[in-house]
Amino acid sequence: MTLSAGPEAPSRSLAHPTRAQIRLEQVLHALSDPVRLSVVSALAATERELPCSAFPLPVTKSTCTHHFRVLREAGVVRQVYRGTAKLNALRRQDLDVLFPGLLDVVLDAAAQQRRQDSAKPL
Amino acid sequence: MTLSAGPEAPSRSLAHPTRAQIRLEQVLHALSDPVRLSVVSALAATERELPCSAFPLPVTKSTCTHHFRVLREAGVVRQVYRGTAKLNALRRQDLDVLFPGLLDVVLDAAAQQRRQDSAKPL
Repeated sequence: MTLSAGPEAPSRSLAHPTRAQIRLEQVLHALSDPVRLSVVSALAATERELPCSAFPLPVTKSTCTHHFRVLREAGVVRQVYRGTAKLNALRRQDLDVLFPGLLDVVLDAAAQQRRQDSAKPL
Repeated sequence: MTLSAGPEAPSRSLAHPTRAQIRLEQVLHALSDPVRLSVVSALAATERELPCSAFPLPVTKSTCTHHFRVLREAGVVRQVYRGTAKLNALRRQDLDVLFPGLLDVVLDAAAQQRRQDSAKPL
């Protein structure tokens, strides 16, 4: 699949799949990693666009960049430059139209799993 | 994670995660492949246990074996030997208890995507 930022897009815009290009398998893959799942949970909990630095992730900056790229290329997040910062927003409307209920069910399951993990004895 | 078939299990039994060992990320990863998604859709549409040969998959036998292993190790399917055949069944109850609604939402999304794909002009 060729991702295009469009012919008239400024040079610093990033390639995103259109809504019609988003594939269920890629969305599930993007959500199948604990770090990416925690990023998506954090984005879902806010209406705001967040910079990568807003996420306290236990990974290096380059790994963080990789995870956001996987999320963007799958169509789960939209990444835009604002000045020198790269901001991230969840593509909730696109996902809800394409795969009704999927995001909410996955986020609920992730939250339940976190609760169970934290209740386990160390 | 160590998967165990249990000390008293017959030698030809296969290792499966217990319900408590099933992780959301691994389930999502197991579902994030078109072949595995089609297998899960077929298993969900029947109450029966099915042998690998029941799935008309566009992959080699060893690739098929790999896909079933991923599904089994993630806790999505249960594989049992019946004589010389290896039979597969969806672990629907385990998944529904752990992640309510997840399987149904993913299967609905997969079915919708298949309908849209087949409606596209070649």
